[in-house]
Amino acid sequence: MAARPEAGTARVTLRDVARLADVHPGTASRALNAQTRALVNAETARRVLEAAEQLGYRPNPIARGLKTNRSYTIGVLIPDLTNPLFPPILRGIEDGLEAGGYTPLMANTDNDPERERIDWQAMRARQVDGIVAATARRDHALLDEMAGSGVPLVLVNRRAEDDRVPAATADDRKGIHLAVEHLAGLGHTRIAHVAGPLELSTGLDRHDGFHEAMRDAGLEPDPELIVVSRAFTEAEGARACRELLARAADPTAIVAGNDLIALGCYDVFAERGIRCPEEISVVGFNDMPFADRFSPPLTTIRIPHYEIGAAAAELMLGLLQGEDAAWRQLRLAPELALRASTGRPRG
Amino acid sequence: MAARPEAGTARVTLRDVARLADVHPGTASRALNAQTRALVNAETARRVLEAAEQLGYRPNPIARGLKTNRSYTIGVLIPDLTNPLFPPILRGIEDGLEAGGYTPLMANTDNDPERERIDWQAMRARQVDGIVAATARRDHALLDEMAGSGVPLVLVNRRAEDDRVPAATADDRKGIHLAVEHLAGLGHTRIAHVAGPLELSTGLDRHDGFHEAMRDAGLEPDPELIVVSRAFTEAEGARACRELLARAADPTAIVAGNDLIALGCYDVFAERGIRCPEEISVVGFNDMPFADRFSPPLTTIRIPHYEIGAAAAELMLGLLQGEDAAWRQLRLAPELALRASTGRPRG
Repeated sequence: MAARPEAGTARVTLRDVARLADVHPGTASRALNAQTRALVNAETARRVLEAAEQLGYRPNPIARGLKTNRSYTIGVLIPDLTNPLFPPILRGIEDGLEAGGYTPLMANTDNDPERERIDWQAMRARQVDGIVAATARRDHALLDEMAGSGVPLVLVNRRAEDDRVPAATADDRKGIHLAVEHLAGLGHTRIAHVAGPLELSTGLDRHDGFHEAMRDAGLEPDPELIVVSRAFTEAEGARACRELLARAADPTAIVAGNDLIALGCYDVFAERGIRCPEEISVVGFNDMPFADRFSPPLTTIRIPHYEIGAAAAELMLGLLQGEDAAWRQLRLAPELALRASTGRPRG
Repeated sequence: MAARPEAGTARVTLRDVARLADVHPGTASRALNAQTRALVNAETARRVLEAAEQLGYRPNPIARGLKTNRSYTIGVLIPDLTNPLFPPILRGIEDGLEAGGYTPLMANTDNDPERERIDWQAMRARQVDGIVAATARRDHALLDEMAGSGVPLVLVNRRAEDDRVPAATADDRKGIHLAVEHLAGLGHTRIAHVAGPLELSTGLDRHDGFHEAMRDAGLEPDPELIVVSRAFTEAEGARACRELLARAADPTAIVAGNDLIALGCYDVFAERGIRCPEEISVVGFNDMPFADRFSPPLTTIRIPHYEIGAAAAELMLGLLQGEDAAWRQLRLAPELALRASTGRPRG
């Protein structure tokens, strides 16, 4: 055993260990806990354990004591399981939580605030140790209630208005920039946006990002070319796309708020005999499972589903170890998935 | 108030009420419980309430007493949420349970027996009132443990070997008959089967149903034309399809164990430049979401996803009201969804 510091020296903290090992305190915390060590690279874990040994680090006994009352279950709130985006995110959440010794119990709120409240109450009554919610809306009374309840809360995929709750999401603005740059690079100038619902961060960030990206590409966004759908669904995408085409603003390309909205656009093209991409290009968002199998295969923005879920789990494990993660916003980088729904503008 | 029978008359049972109202006792039970009444047709509920009034029915006080210890949560075990079949089944389960006043808490076992055991233990520790499991395997030690635990158990989509646990599933044999009849009707005789895993009732019932259906169509099933995949996934479907084509048994049509296996066959066709349906026809199973959007749109067997989930919820609500439903096996009828992946045989 290495020599321990004598009584009287300042108490060694987790941050001291992290600093010596040159890692984030969250990483140090996970490396020091046998239940979560598997989440950390083996070489990193070795370095943290050596640093702890060297400094004579002893875990905070109060934090450890809290654990004995734990249920080791985490509630996970999903807005719509029929959106294929969510299952791979869930898998990341599950793997991350289970590696930390926690079992996720999920509920599907169906985008229904009443059902979400019931699910939250059921989870609370079942004494979950934390909540991972994919259901955030920008103005969301229940979210405030959850955040104020003392039960650790992490958001996934969608974030809260002023980033007041830790969240793991895709970098939605960057994603839309990739979509617009791709279309502008092909020569499109009349680029439309069929936005998702603006009360969700995903809808709003992509909408705002679209305006920025158009200007960055030297194009002026035309209000006639922007329509907003009321939900991230095929039916709403189709409705909004019909509204767009009725304006006779003559787009040659559409940036869709997500892949389901893009499929709604496909449906309108099929109704009207519009060929994609010959007459109009479409870019989706998410690269949800099966997007490569549609007709035509959908060019879209790939977000790292599994990694977003795993990052949310990591934030939750950090909170459960008393880490101050309230400020943490993880935005994971997207990339362009180039397929057959985009091409040069007609004529 | 109507006159009540005097003391000394035989106790009026739920079955008496059901008989007078000419409904199933489960229906009578649901109609009599304010929390579950919404599940019953309004006219039926009125008839049951009148019958109860007329007979002076009083609910079993012991059964009522049991309720006070309830958590009003039901655990739902799903084997693989990335299979798009499950979300619409889940929605049926959720709506059914919530109409009965119960909140479902789900776990995704990822087809991993170890994870399933952890999920079951977490649910038990959280004192769920029942378990709805879509994870049944034919030889399944954990299923026996769950069934013997005293916690009400209902299976959904897959059933147990000798129907020893109540289950709501599709009629898998009938579905495969529809697939074979469709192909035989188009003139196919060399019909292959890429079966799902035979340790699942869905895999085995479709496999056995295929043999029956071929004989019923006057065709002899050729062992060279039958391959078995190890999982209901695209990757396993592709592997099994390659094995089939390597045998040079020259099928003109494939009945796939499910839609994901059919997509695996599509992948092999794409690798080898085989045109579907011109050179080979494919029928899937499930009509999972997006099956109509694949290239070519997939001819498949549509099973009533939502209704299967709702039926499982109904079985569970019956068990929770003390109904003896152990023998109940609900098999819901499938139908053919005719699309573009099937045609007349080549040549």
